[in-house]
Amino acid sequence: LTSKLPDVGTSIFSVMSQLAAECGAINLAQGFPDYDPPQALTDALARHARTPGHHQYAPMPGLPRLREAISQKTAAVYGVAAPNPDTEITITSGATEALYAVLAAVVRPGDEVLVLEPAYDLYGPAIRLQGGIPVYVPLRVPEFSPDWDLVKAALSPRTRLIMLNTPHNPSGAVLTAQDLATLAALLANTATLVLSDEVYEHMVFDGQQHASALQLPELAERSFVLSSFGKTYHATGWKVGYCIAPPLLTAEVRRVHQFLTFAVSTPAQHALADVLADAEQYQTLPDFYQHKRDLFAGLLQGSRFELLPAPGSYFQLARYDQISAEADVDFARRLTREFGVAVIPVSAFYHDGLDQGLIRFCFAKRDETLALAAERLRAV
Amino acid sequence: LTSKLPDVGTSIFSVMSQLAAECGAINLAQGFPDYDPPQALTDALARHARTPGHHQYAPMPGLPRLREAISQKTAAVYGVAAPNPDTEITITSGATEALYAVLAAVVRPGDEVLVLEPAYDLYGPAIRLQGGIPVYVPLRVPEFSPDWDLVKAALSPRTRLIMLNTPHNPSGAVLTAQDLATLAALLANTATLVLSDEVYEHMVFDGQQHASALQLPELAERSFVLSSFGKTYHATGWKVGYCIAPPLLTAEVRRVHQFLTFAVSTPAQHALADVLADAEQYQTLPDFYQHKRDLFAGLLQGSRFELLPAPGSYFQLARYDQISAEADVDFARRLTREFGVAVIPVSAFYHDGLDQGLIRFCFAKRDETLALAAERLRAV
Ligand SMILES: CSCCC(=O)C(=O)O
Ligand SMILES: CSCCC(=O)C(=O)O
Repeated sequence: LTSKLPDVGTSIFSVMSQLAAECGAINLAQGFPDYDPPQALTDALARHARTPGHHQYAPMPGLPRLREAISQKTAAVYGVAAPNPDTEITITSGATEALYAVLAAVVRPGDEVLVLEPAYDLYGPAIRLQGGIPVYVPLRVPEFSPDWDLVKAALSPRTRLIMLNTPHNPSGAVLTAQDLATLAALLANTATLVLSDEVYEHMVFDGQQHASALQLPELAERSFVLSSFGKTYHATGWKVGYCIAPPLLTAEVRRVHQFLTFAVSTPAQHALADVLADAEQYQTLPDFYQHKRDLFAGLLQGSRFELLPAPGSYFQLARYDQISAEADVDFARRLTREFGVAVIPVSAFYHDGLDQGLIRFCFAKRDETLALAAERLRAV
Repeated sequence: LTSKLPDVGTSIFSVMSQLAAECGAINLAQGFPDYDPPQALTDALARHARTPGHHQYAPMPGLPRLREAISQKTAAVYGVAAPNPDTEITITSGATEALYAVLAAVVRPGDEVLVLEPAYDLYGPAIRLQGGIPVYVPLRVPEFSPDWDLVKAALSPRTRLIMLNTPHNPSGAVLTAQDLATLAALLANTATLVLSDEVYEHMVFDGQQHASALQLPELAERSFVLSSFGKTYHATGWKVGYCIAPPLLTAEVRRVHQFLTFAVSTPAQHALADVLADAEQYQTLPDFYQHKRDLFAGLLQGSRFELLPAPGSYFQLARYDQISAEADVDFARRLTREFGVAVIPVSAFYHDGLDQGLIRFCFAKRDETLALAAERLRAV
């Protein structure tokens, strides 16, 4: 058997989490909190686990009451018309399934897909599995903002889709409303669609606001906008995400979703529907994570890591050139093994492994965890 | 946007369930029980919902303790060497995700995939989304057993995969050990792989035993064997399934699984791991469902439906030619609307809609539900 993805190994997130476990290191690598979801949510899951009739297939597009709650929340948060739950919202097995379903639904063999790099490691292989051709456009370093002239130059009549991610993993960079307007203008009169991965939508700091593709009608009309309860509710292991898109695009996503997973956990969907109307969780999230970002940065003062600006997401990039000239992969492994702190090498987010001497910390950790990690990192 | 699957509509299971809901009909269409999982399982989910630390990503291949439990159960049930949990077992978002992941992992553009028809509605579209070519081989009617000469004639050097399903949906037919040996002989010295969808493995009646592809080494070495907790534990809405395959095949499935959904619900996996060692649930399942099959058949005596043999699964096929000469689709809709019993037209399981005047009942329903449905059906 020759592999269809011979150059694709195990995801870096699995690799580093496993190494962290083997070494007993603090895992600041894979992005997940070391605290639990709000108790209202875990109580809700326990309640629905014991509710007769909540254990069979949910409807294929998702539980109506959860889609309704998402619709209302979206309208309230972004000041847009409420998306139609019946025709514009689809619940998926995490944003990961939504990403894959969008690609499988719209990318044909030979289609080009623009990917702004660094990018989440699934984008490239998932495009290639559809026979698509990823066209990589580098983000400006160190601010990780798009150079729209480069994007313009990369667009072609064969560009089926452009993938956005804001706030951005791994850098935390956020697109501005102006960025989105520039992109919308570039795409006017083209058939290019947009996938906007906004799973960190509620983690934007320093008083800035997240700009969603949903807020710009010229962009929204051609966009699949993805989000995830895993990030917002500290429940990455629940695997519930969703896709908002205009009816014609939603119809195509669902055509694939029905064959990819068919439906998503019924008790988990009920539990999320119970808590979504309470805005407190996502309204307090910026402060919650800004505190952690600032705490971690403060604790690393006096260390030899140089932290980059981190305007959003729960990730913090750092240069380590004052410490070592090693490849970032080697440095990440050594940090894990010798210093007990696992991190992600940023080269894993480049299709060609471009190494810029950067590592990524996840600061979605208890304050004590961040303090202990920082203590170890200061010793480096 | 032109669709990649222009001829594929909403899955018949969604369509009929929605119609059933609209008409207030008894839903014997989509396959799911109208009773709950064993209380030990729902209690376990409630417990893990409240367990700190059980809410973040499970490892990509699945929770180790669940894979270990599956390994031991498999060895015990089939009298085979325990599959290696690290290299041969992968937990997926239902058997549906496993099916799609196998196809995405091994089918390349132009590859042929043999499908024995009638077949579950996702097989064809999911093959086509990989650029594969479904090659349909009809099962013998009315016994729905394979004609191995036809299979042999359909095999070509381009046959990448053959899809088996035993017990069979929609007919309930079961493959014998002799069938599997015949297939193994046909595939000797070819590079053709096997996907064996065995989600109804614990629903084989009349003292017969389920013959698994895992039990024949010549077949197991080239097979992906799929099962699902949804069927065995009355929990179709939990969406937890798995794939057992030799290490090289498992590696390819995981390469795709990590981008398709990455991981599966952590609390659900813990709950299932808690109950899997207790063999009672699956050991009592044949009697449990044989009782329902026989009850339903008994109640339909004197009706004008002619029931076909139903040796496995929780489905019962019926002819209705003494009632009507309508197309099965029309008859199914009319049964739902006018008589309050929703069923699946068997033509939905044929790529070309071949209509043999057959409908499918799901008898995974409470005895009272079956009695009420039968009362309505006797009035037809
Ligand atoms: C699906 S594991 C990766 C989690 C994540 O989004 C990240 O660490 O970047
Ligand atoms: C995923 S919905 C279909 C359930 C099922 O397997 C069937 O009804 O055949």
